[in-house]
Amino acid sequence: MTKCIVAQSGGPTAVINATVAGIVKANQMNPFYDKVLGGLNGIEGVLQERFVDLTDMTDEENLLLRQTPSSALGSCRYKLNRQKTEDMEKLIRIMRKHDVETLFYIGGNDSMDTVAALSEYAAAHGITDCRFVGCPKTVDNDLVITDHCPGFASAAKFIASTTLQTWYDVNVYTRQEVFILETMGRDAGWLAAASCLSEKVDILIVPEVPFRKERFLELVAEKLAETNHCYIVVSEGARFEDGQYLAAGEAKNDGFGHAVLGGAAKYLENLLLSTGTAQRCKTLDLSSAQRSHATEQSLTDVTESFELGMSAHMRSCDRAFTGKMVGVVRHPGVDNYDIDFIAVDADKVANFVKNFPVAWLKEDYAGITDAAIEYFRPLIEGTPQFITKNGLPVYIKPYYLK
Amino acid sequence: MTKCIVAQSGGPTAVINATVAGIVKANQMNPFYDKVLGGLNGIEGVLQERFVDLTDMTDEENLLLRQTPSSALGSCRYKLNRQKTEDMEKLIRIMRKHDVETLFYIGGNDSMDTVAALSEYAAAHGITDCRFVGCPKTVDNDLVITDHCPGFASAAKFIASTTLQTWYDVNVYTRQEVFILETMGRDAGWLAAASCLSEKVDILIVPEVPFRKERFLELVAEKLAETNHCYIVVSEGARFEDGQYLAAGEAKNDGFGHAVLGGAAKYLENLLLSTGTAQRCKTLDLSSAQRSHATEQSLTDVTESFELGMSAHMRSCDRAFTGKMVGVVRHPGVDNYDIDFIAVDADKVANFVKNFPVAWLKEDYAGITDAAIEYFRPLIEGTPQFITKNGLPVYIKPYYLK
Repeated sequence: MTKCIVAQSGGPTAVINATVAGIVKANQMNPFYDKVLGGLNGIEGVLQERFVDLTDMTDEENLLLRQTPSSALGSCRYKLNRQKTEDMEKLIRIMRKHDVETLFYIGGNDSMDTVAALSEYAAAHGITDCRFVGCPKTVDNDLVITDHCPGFASAAKFIASTTLQTWYDVNVYTRQEVFILETMGRDAGWLAAASCLSEKVDILIVPEVPFRKERFLELVAEKLAETNHCYIVVSEGARFEDGQYLAAGEAKNDGFGHAVLGGAAKYLENLLLSTGTAQRCKTLDLSSAQRSHATEQSLTDVTESFELGMSAHMRSCDRAFTGKMVGVVRHPGVDNYDIDFIAVDADKVANFVKNFPVAWLKEDYAGITDAAIEYFRPLIEGTPQFITKNGLPVYIKPYYLK
Repeated sequence: MTKCIVAQSGGPTAVINATVAGIVKANQMNPFYDKVLGGLNGIEGVLQERFVDLTDMTDEENLLLRQTPSSALGSCRYKLNRQKTEDMEKLIRIMRKHDVETLFYIGGNDSMDTVAALSEYAAAHGITDCRFVGCPKTVDNDLVITDHCPGFASAAKFIASTTLQTWYDVNVYTRQEVFILETMGRDAGWLAAASCLSEKVDILIVPEVPFRKERFLELVAEKLAETNHCYIVVSEGARFEDGQYLAAGEAKNDGFGHAVLGGAAKYLENLLLSTGTAQRCKTLDLSSAQRSHATEQSLTDVTESFELGMSAHMRSCDRAFTGKMVGVVRHPGVDNYDIDFIAVDADKVANFVKNFPVAWLKEDYAGITDAAIEYFRPLIEGTPQFITKNGLPVYIKPYYLK
């Protein structure tokens, strides 16, 4: 009798549940584990022994799970790291008590750190019956080694389509209009950069290139003189040359030591109006809509998220497989997008940040290069067929509420 | 040799171009007019003789036009009313100079007032060779007589799907979370009410029912005590019992004498945090995204918008047809949604507001009744097949930029 647990952590995405669905589906095709348990609210709920049984999920539920946004098992912000040996001991006890052999942890780089810490702890204590496997997810796309992260592409697609559509709205009047879209992206500019797939962005401000106020004001003034309209996209994590966030006035702390940002667009709006550079300005902060807008899932993204879950399960049937994250490697060549799944050491991913390449940014905040567009385009391809009722998508009831 | 002009006014919608496409298509099927001209930037551009020729649009361009959000002919905020006799004289002169017999004006109630004013002016001055036909559009759904307005349903669908999806996001953590979604709706609560199609809204605040601060705080506190989460939707036009807007601190004026609103959600957030009712709160103001998010067009809506344009053209082949708006009447009965187009006097629509029925609101800000759901549901049914390229929808280049 052996079981596995799958749990989700950190900020949810529009396709994070597809990885759960893939693990469950793989176990139905090869029942290596007698049970697939869902751990509720991440490692926090696992430590409280809060589980649901996902083993015999129907195919219909599996399909609905794939189209349901946000973490159906619930999430947490609790970080289990090397310092928390009591938690690690307790987790091992709980896994053994429930005959759990493998913990699949779906999350960002904090979660990969948890996977690395647990597998190191197990190795150091001669524990061979408990294994830990990481599955990446993050809308921020900032994990190293993997070509990209499940969840990113769907958020990127929603941002690009929203940019395109609001650009059409911004331009209908002859009067002057500045529009500022703010995207997520605490440290990396991937999501903001993806807005440029719309080919409508005049000025792009990402964390990777310091914000120079004077040059920004000149660029906006030039664009307004030319067309009377200006479309600006800014990352929440955009910062000045001294490293201070544009949104610094509103910076708080999320308990992980990360600044909680918001307000870069409002800062720019105030700057443009107070300097008289613009007379009218609208802002749009997509907030959590950008990571949960599953009605615009990329088919590529949701398929890869599902298959990554399957791959993680299949690799875990090797009893030496632990402390690994399953990632994505892209085959070279633009015309035929093709990926393989790879296994990488979780500690090589944990706590690193993959920035948007500065070489993919045009000079003077003018957007992204063709190389960046070639990277992005295949990721946002395709629209899944959704199961709908009364005009809206059908979603499963979250397991943490069942 | 006779021509018609079609022009668009006011805030754009996700399906406003489908009415233009319908007029063009009808004229290709029955070339009553030798030319269909697009008037750029509404009545403002017509007065400047800024036209494009739409007569021979290809079927492919017609399809792309239907899926392109926002006013492809450009819009204006210029109101031509009974006081502006010089403008009316000038417009008649321009129409006669270009052999234009009919002006189709697509807009909200200000535009219907323009149609009424022009047709009254023509009648009073014995002008029988210039005619004026209104086509409704407004995301606000606040025009009287017509059952609903093209453009509303697609915005309603996007709001409902965003509510559903962000609700899933809000609930993933065990920690307390209040989410406040702000929708458009200056005077009427239709858009905010449509969020309740998600069946996830705890508290709904619309302009039709005065906001009582104490009761609101009690309700939020009760909901948080029960589930630790609370989902609130508020119209931008929500107001206190004395009629003052929640967003009053940010009220400006748009030149029509309407208050430009924004900030009802921020007001509520500040209220909840400053009173200690909530510890955490997120807000989302969908801004112009809600009226331009054509990737979630309702198939019902875009089809009706197209057919309404055709109906307006076909009716205009009767040379007595002027001063009318083409509206929608719904056949009674819930199971088989069916509509007809009707012609109504534009002056019976102009400058009236159809509020969301108070009888369709549950007590205590608890959302909407089954009767309201029965009204909304057929409107958001169906998803069009979109023409896409590189993962994004293909839109026509706006005519005002060509």
